[in-house]
Amino acid sequence: MTKPNIPKGTRDFGPLEMARRNYIFSTIRNVFARYGFQQIETPSMELMSTLMGKYGEEGDKLLFRIQNSGEKANEAPEKGLRYDLTVPFARYIVQHRDELQFPFRRFQIQPVWRADRPQKGRYREFYQCDVDVIGTDSLVSELELIQIVEDVYQALGIRVCLHLNNRKILAGIAEVIGAPDKIIDITTAIDKLDKIGLENVNKELSERGLADDSIAKLQPILALQGSNEEKLDAIAEVLAGNETGTKGVEEMTQIIDLMKCQLSTINYQLDLTLARGLNYYTGTIFEVKALDVQIGSITGGGRYDNLTGIFGLPNVSGVGISFGADRIYDVLTELNLYPASMMNATQVLFATFGDAELRYALKWAKQLRKENIRVEVYPEPAKMKKQMSYADSKAIPLVAIVGGNEMESDTVMLKNMTTGEQSQVTIEQLINKIKKV
Amino acid sequence: MTKPNIPKGTRDFGPLEMARRNYIFSTIRNVFARYGFQQIETPSMELMSTLMGKYGEEGDKLLFRIQNSGEKANEAPEKGLRYDLTVPFARYIVQHRDELQFPFRRFQIQPVWRADRPQKGRYREFYQCDVDVIGTDSLVSELELIQIVEDVYQALGIRVCLHLNNRKILAGIAEVIGAPDKIIDITTAIDKLDKIGLENVNKELSERGLADDSIAKLQPILALQGSNEEKLDAIAEVLAGNETGTKGVEEMTQIIDLMKCQLSTINYQLDLTLARGLNYYTGTIFEVKALDVQIGSITGGGRYDNLTGIFGLPNVSGVGISFGADRIYDVLTELNLYPASMMNATQVLFATFGDAELRYALKWAKQLRKENIRVEVYPEPAKMKKQMSYADSKAIPLVAIVGGNEMESDTVMLKNMTTGEQSQVTIEQLINKIKKV
Repeated sequence: MTKPNIPKGTRDFGPLEMARRNYIFSTIRNVFARYGFQQIETPSMELMSTLMGKYGEEGDKLLFRIQNSGEKANEAPEKGLRYDLTVPFARYIVQHRDELQFPFRRFQIQPVWRADRPQKGRYREFYQCDVDVIGTDSLVSELELIQIVEDVYQALGIRVCLHLNNRKILAGIAEVIGAPDKIIDITTAIDKLDKIGLENVNKELSERGLADDSIAKLQPILALQGSNEEKLDAIAEVLAGNETGTKGVEEMTQIIDLMKCQLSTINYQLDLTLARGLNYYTGTIFEVKALDVQIGSITGGGRYDNLTGIFGLPNVSGVGISFGADRIYDVLTELNLYPASMMNATQVLFATFGDAELRYALKWAKQLRKENIRVEVYPEPAKMKKQMSYADSKAIPLVAIVGGNEMESDTVMLKNMTTGEQSQVTIEQLINKIKKV
Repeated sequence: MTKPNIPKGTRDFGPLEMARRNYIFSTIRNVFARYGFQQIETPSMELMSTLMGKYGEEGDKLLFRIQNSGEKANEAPEKGLRYDLTVPFARYIVQHRDELQFPFRRFQIQPVWRADRPQKGRYREFYQCDVDVIGTDSLVSELELIQIVEDVYQALGIRVCLHLNNRKILAGIAEVIGAPDKIIDITTAIDKLDKIGLENVNKELSERGLADDSIAKLQPILALQGSNEEKLDAIAEVLAGNETGTKGVEEMTQIIDLMKCQLSTINYQLDLTLARGLNYYTGTIFEVKALDVQIGSITGGGRYDNLTGIFGLPNVSGVGISFGADRIYDVLTELNLYPASMMNATQVLFATFGDAELRYALKWAKQLRKENIRVEVYPEPAKMKKQMSYADSKAIPLVAIVGGNEMESDTVMLKNMTTGEQSQVTIEQLINKIKKV
């Protein structure tokens, strides 16, 4: 019989991977709680009417559809798997608006599914971890999300740079160069500046129907240099007299001012090339990159003024970011930043020479567990070598060996698996030893 | 526009429901850790070849199939949604057997999907929470699962009764009454004793082809009364000379003996009507019922000797149980047993009269968060009434009000939302106050 397998693009997570993932999620969750965010979950399946048309034509093709066995094969399935957490969140807000208190601060950590071609680092099932404030246009929400980014990456020990942009600045630029209807083409092209270079971006802009003089007017913007303040001043000058653009510059200035007032130490930069290819952002756009690993964006998001409009509730402004758990996982692995304690692993294994010893060990285990100590009892008096090698392969630091002598003297022979040291200890001594470690 | 909706049989979980669910799962997880169990996760999708034929004909019909948009509608989908955690676990063990250390102790908390007709308390998406030891036939594993049941329900404050049975006893009975090939019919019928009564069970047995004298021989077994010891003695007598049955009685005797030796205080009873309708159990069968709420089984499981055989790895014995999170949720709700602390809710809200005050509040918030206090700042200096009603509806216990006076004296006006009390406090006083609560 051949080994069974799993669908391509999906993954099993074993104990080590799960401990690492739980460490990432609990670190993030703890930060969210300090800012008063509350968790929600939405179903894995949404109605196709909820999903279709929300992710562009390309996105529609990447939806997984779900069939009941009752449904005929040629019937269009009525349900699909969640493609992201944003659209279900918008649906949730509209559906439950009468029960919610606005501004509504929620976070959500759940898997999403995309029928993408699987490749290294791209999966068909992966977790998203979104945090949003909805129902206020106060820039304090932007500030708080920036602080959350700062707190999370400080807690994880990852050095990052926060990239900031504003969709209104991009729109202003489009207007100023005389191509206001081309903002989506411009932002999509600018988004690729890092990947394909200036020349190809200009070529693409031309192919997208941008006039040569518009492209020429855009060049100073694409070539901006200097400190954040210098860049912002230069942009303000280009956009002087343009209402949308000036509003964007004002928002950016206010956010930077709030960060200063909060003595934020996060490393950040204005980045006009940042558009995130997403058309629903209307204000600030965020992206976070790890400084010590080449991996692209590990967190991103922005402000949207009309997310719930698609479900019939217009003019609700919100802002949110999404932490990329898989990439954060890779960064922590590459930089070897996981703390040993995250495994929450067994602290002591009892190994026994016979049935009476096994029962004796079970009694000790019960007492230790009452002290919240993580204990295993090898379930049979197997060969001592087998029991020791079990402890070894699970990296259990202490083995309590029980034979006739130990039972008689109400002790165990405690072996430190790192140093090889052995000593006979009472139960009180054992508890103290473990609690000290 | 009509309100958007979700597929029938699925649920949104809001902040209160999520806090309750997280409380249940973290309580269970903490107990699992004390016994050295490690978490794994498997993909939501499995290959249809992994799923089909594992849950009987009825089960096959309840599988949700997944279609890529690339797949033709009349092609048979190659993937389906996870129906339970047991079959994916068996697949996981066989696929990863070379990386695993046996006995392998794992737990798994993930949603499963069934295309059942939705009704009260039955959903198309629900969580399972499974814990298993695989790779040993030692009854110490049974004992540990019983201890886990005891610890979990003690921690949750739910009074329970553990029902115990053994598949070998059932098989022995089938042999003794002269219908060894009818064991599945007998157990399925016995399983319904509680629901449809003795008379209907006898009728069903007859319909299933059991001879009248076999049914007659079965009656004393169905009518067993008395203490656990008396019942076990009576069964031992009926099964005397029958090898399988006697082995079952021995296993049961040993487990009870181990429980006594461990001074287990769990309320338990031998229950021959317990078969759980599942055919893969080969030894002990468990079921846990809440004593103070009529809701059926809240935990169940048993020993299986050949779970991985379906994937080509025979003779691997394991034993496991599954906690029913949805029913546990309902029991805790009905008995009002959730601790207030589980909400992990915001401890203090800052309400402000103007922009300068808002910035002042943000500085305080930052310091409080450093002390691990959960803080919100109302993001705009809205009308005080609005800010207070936000605190009220989110049940935030303290509001720190900031006006000009407070800024001048480096204080806030702290309002206790329960008592209405107000007092002017410094930041040190505020931190101390919150930490005391």
